[in-house]
Amino acid sequence: MKRYGSVIQVHPHKIEEYKRLHANPWPEVVDAIREVNIANYSIYLRKLPDGNHYLFSYFEYVGSDFAGDMARMASLEVIQKWWGLCKPCHAPLPDRAEGEWWACMEEVFHTA
Amino acid sequence: MKRYGSVIQVHPHKIEEYKRLHANPWPEVVDAIREVNIANYSIYLRKLPDGNHYLFSYFEYVGSDFAGDMARMASLEVIQKWWGLCKPCHAPLPDRAEGEWWACMEEVFHTA
Repeated sequence: MKRYGSVIQVHPHKIEEYKRLHANPWPEVVDAIREVNIANYSIYLRKLPDGNHYLFSYFEYVGSDFAGDMARMASLEVIQKWWGLCKPCHAPLPDRAEGEWWACMEEVFHTA
Repeated sequence: MKRYGSVIQVHPHKIEEYKRLHANPWPEVVDAIREVNIANYSIYLRKLPDGNHYLFSYFEYVGSDFAGDMARMASLEVIQKWWGLCKPCHAPLPDRAEGEWWACMEEVFHTA
């Protein structure tokens, strides 16, 4: 199992829409998340001192081919439709790594 | 089980010290964390677009008296010594709730 923490900004005028979508995610999206071996997936929201709102995600990847599973997820029609609603809510970090949407964070501590 | 996500700023000149401390936490601190029913505890680090560095924590509380367990942890001598090293690294969010050091974030999504 590998843990992933990542961060993205959310546009202020899209916060309520984003929360509404994620309070009742489409069952097919939840199924897809599980099917690509993502487990224990949480997203948190907080306004930070710069006045912007950020989303922080934490999930556990329980498969053996992360890149393959992520590519498979991205190819699903239901996920493309879901992202079509989610991505306009996001303002990705300018210094994210190439190929990233959510920017990966560095894990500096873990206890089981 | 209840999940907690929280955030705090870290002073730039203290980042390396914070990472060094948390790469090899004192065994008594790890024992105390478990003993107060905190599980699956991760801390992530990321520089955000405001130029500041933030720490994001995620843990799972598996006990039945969170306030009591947190008070018990705070009373332990080893934790007080540990926090004596960690807290000078932190710049807590000005708008955190009363009694908070790390600021709680709002969970907007979860899938098992």
